[in-house]
Amino acid sequence: VLNESVKDDSLGLERVVFFSDAVFAITITLLILEVRAPHLPEGARNRDLLEAIVGLLPKLVGYLVSFLVVGSMWIEHHRVFRYIGQYDDGLLWRNLVLLLTVGLMPFPTALFSENHKLGGSLAVYAGCLAAVGVAKVWLWRYASGGRRLLRHGVSEAIVGKVSRRSWAVPVTCAVTGMLGALGVRFAYMGFAFIPAVAWLFDRIGRTPALDRGDGPTSG
Amino acid sequence: VLNESVKDDSLGLERVVFFSDAVFAITITLLILEVRAPHLPEGARNRDLLEAIVGLLPKLVGYLVSFLVVGSMWIEHHRVFRYIGQYDDGLLWRNLVLLLTVGLMPFPTALFSENHKLGGSLAVYAGCLAAVGVAKVWLWRYASGGRRLLRHGVSEAIVGKVSRRSWAVPVTCAVTGMLGALGVRFAYMGFAFIPAVAWLFDRIGRTPALDRGDGPTSG
Amino acid sequence: VLNESVKDDSLGLERVVFFSDAVFAITITLLILEVRAPHLPEGARNRDLLEAIVGLLPKLVGYLVSFLVVGSMWIEHHRVFRYIGQYDDGLLWRNLVLLLTVGLMPFPTALFSENHKLGGSLAVYAGCLAAVGVAKVWLWRYASGGRRLLRHGVSEAIVGKVSRRSWAVPVTCAVTGMLGALGVRFAYMGFAFIPAVAWLFDRIGRTPALDRGDGPTSG
Amino acid sequence: VLNESVKDDSLGLERVVFFSDAVFAITITLLILEVRAPHLPEGARNRDLLEAIVGLLPKLVGYLVSFLVVGSMWIEHHRVFRYIGQYDDGLLWRNLVLLLTVGLMPFPTALFSENHKLGGSLAVYAGCLAAVGVAKVWLWRYASGGRRLLRHGVSEAIVGKVSRRSWAVPVTCAVTGMLGALGVRFAYMGFAFIPAVAWLFDRIGRTPALDRGDGPTSG
Repeated sequence: VLNESVKDDSLGLERVVFFSDAVFAITITLLILEVRAPHLPEGARNRDLLEAIVGLLPKLVGYLVSFLVVGSMWIEHHRVFRYIGQYDDGLLWRNLVLLLTVGLMPFPTALFSENHKLGGSLAVYAGCLAAVGVAKVWLWRYASGGRRLLRHGVSEAIVGKVSRRSWAVPVTCAVTGMLGALGVRFAYMGFAFIPAVAWLFDRIGRTPALDRGDGPTSG
Repeated sequence: VLNESVKDDSLGLERVVFFSDAVFAITITLLILEVRAPHLPEGARNRDLLEAIVGLLPKLVGYLVSFLVVGSMWIEHHRVFRYIGQYDDGLLWRNLVLLLTVGLMPFPTALFSENHKLGGSLAVYAGCLAAVGVAKVWLWRYASGGRRLLRHGVSEAIVGKVSRRSWAVPVTCAVTGMLGALGVRFAYMGFAFIPAVAWLFDRIGRTPALDRGDGPTSG
Repeated sequence: VLNESVKDDSLGLERVVFFSDAVFAITITLLILEVRAPHLPEGARNRDLLEAIVGLLPKLVGYLVSFLVVGSMWIEHHRVFRYIGQYDDGLLWRNLVLLLTVGLMPFPTALFSENHKLGGSLAVYAGCLAAVGVAKVWLWRYASGGRRLLRHGVSEAIVGKVSRRSWAVPVTCAVTGMLGALGVRFAYMGFAFIPAVAWLFDRIGRTPALDRGDGPTSG
Repeated sequence: VLNESVKDDSLGLERVVFFSDAVFAITITLLILEVRAPHLPEGARNRDLLEAIVGLLPKLVGYLVSFLVVGSMWIEHHRVFRYIGQYDDGLLWRNLVLLLTVGLMPFPTALFSENHKLGGSLAVYAGCLAAVGVAKVWLWRYASGGRRLLRHGVSEAIVGKVSRRSWAVPVTCAVTGMLGALGVRFAYMGFAFIPAVAWLFDRIGRTPALDRGDGPTSG
């Protein structure tokens, strides 16, 4: 039903974007539901309250980290869709799969908060986040392949840059998750390297030698 | 209060669409709340975590399937509203009933996840999904009947196509639900046939003989 | 900070409307969370499932009724804001109070579902719904008084009609709630009279004699 | 990736605004989930229901207060973004941090509702609200510094006014929180002074002598 003819339907594209925004916003806001407020018994003191809150720290940190992680995924989505000017069924489905992985995030967040001493929970978290990253790569390759759905005026340099940087999330998460599963301490700090890895991938990809090999990806 | 005179209120129509998007987005995102992260006791190992997650598989599959099902209903809604250019009270109420059936979906999803060995739970799930499909047929017949609310330039061919395909969800779900209630194994795989049935209904409807009988539906 | 000068900020008004839509949409979708899916023990049969679902009927009816009630409040909000073309701090706060009453609705819905045999729970439900109605009257009187924030081209006839109909929800709910508190059976059916009462109020108000007295309300 | 060149992307800015609206709307609507409806035993009377509701008053007041508090934060956000006409990565991240503090509010709300006799819970609430205020100051200083992202036509007088008023929330909350931690009764009434403090800060800042010192803040 949905063919070439409707590619220039800008209200339709706007709706796809706002639907996605809503899913991101709800996912990010549901995270706080995992942090249950303690009910202290009659006669408790402020120091008991403080202790109860300290006991909640893993959950509060989980909220904080996942809020920023999902939020940065939203910023990425926002960025990518600024370069997309048309849509078709293929994009709708790939976007839905991306949202499916995003909407899953409250689960690994809670799993990690509840079992943060188990390296396996970090591996699950990293795996889910890697899935978000892979879904984004999948969407971007579809939209940018042969400039299928790109807006006019988006340069090849930008397409290449986005393509190269896209792999930072899956790769960093895979490494972080494996380190976590192996029981390496502070493995979770691996997530903090995502921006650096993105920069590195972009930098490497831009070297003349690799640029040739990279060409097909961005066109 | 709301009459012919306001039919061309495009901001108003946009608001209907965005309100619907929000309901779809919230429904789809609430699905994950059903998957409660397990809290393992002190001293648990990664293999215990793995076992716990395997125990959650029916719920995770429920999330996955319902996300895609509700998501494809959203894509359908998106598709239909691209052909609608005006609105009136009749459309608002039919759309509200459609959203009511969509908003119900987390319940059969949880019911099926919790009792997936009972064929009856599949029947309930299929019944609710069939209700979404019927509500959509109801909305589309109202909007397209006599071209009441259609955008200019939407061809009769498209109207007919959407009308014919609309029955795929209710019919496939009815059959799937009945098979499930009868205890047929793998009955739930029936949902996967929805796209094929839609194609079939469209194909059959397009034959010249049937097209005449179908005329009144799409006009 | 927000004065006359920004009254014509259409993006700002759009944002108020979409924020309100989101609150309505979330409220309406959260209602299903109250209907918890039962988990049947190993070896249960379809008839056990059926019984469990029958036991949930009060909650399912609660979902159904409140979805339609909050949905019709949204339709009302949608209708009223089509006549409003400007905004100021007064409108923002009145709208926030209206949303506060809307956002409260999941509580009386759950209260009534859990204790439907107690007339008092119907009174609480009716009271909350009446509060939504009063908040809407308050907002509309502010926006339409002296045509403060109305869009150009909205006739006095429409202003009067909306004003007169606005009282149907508070009045019908007050009567329904009182009947409920007194233990009258089927008192909850009072809500079904809202459309008829709205029509009646409009009809009475339009008679020449009353119209003069009604003038100040709508201007 | 996101540089000067995309500053005038108005759809992109709109998306930032709607994403923020959604987070505010969801946060505000989730608050009611904390108010669990009681289930009275068979044979209970209306007076039992009344007692149960009276027992819920702290939670209902918590809903009311936090709805208005988060709602007024939204009004502030709405106000500030009317003066912003462009965006860049710096704004996106500052906005995300602001939303992170907003999304946290259901937790202190529940904490205070559950433990309202403990002054410490008021301190936590005030601290979280102060964090929202500080995040807003941070965002506004970035957007307005050197008029980096301001819309054309926004006067220096408005910039100064918003800057001066911005400190009212953090300062009032800090004082209120400290009084609460010290066990001062009715300390929570401090929040009601926020509008007055905002007015005072604006008034003081506007005096010629202080205006010179304030200059750098607003430019």
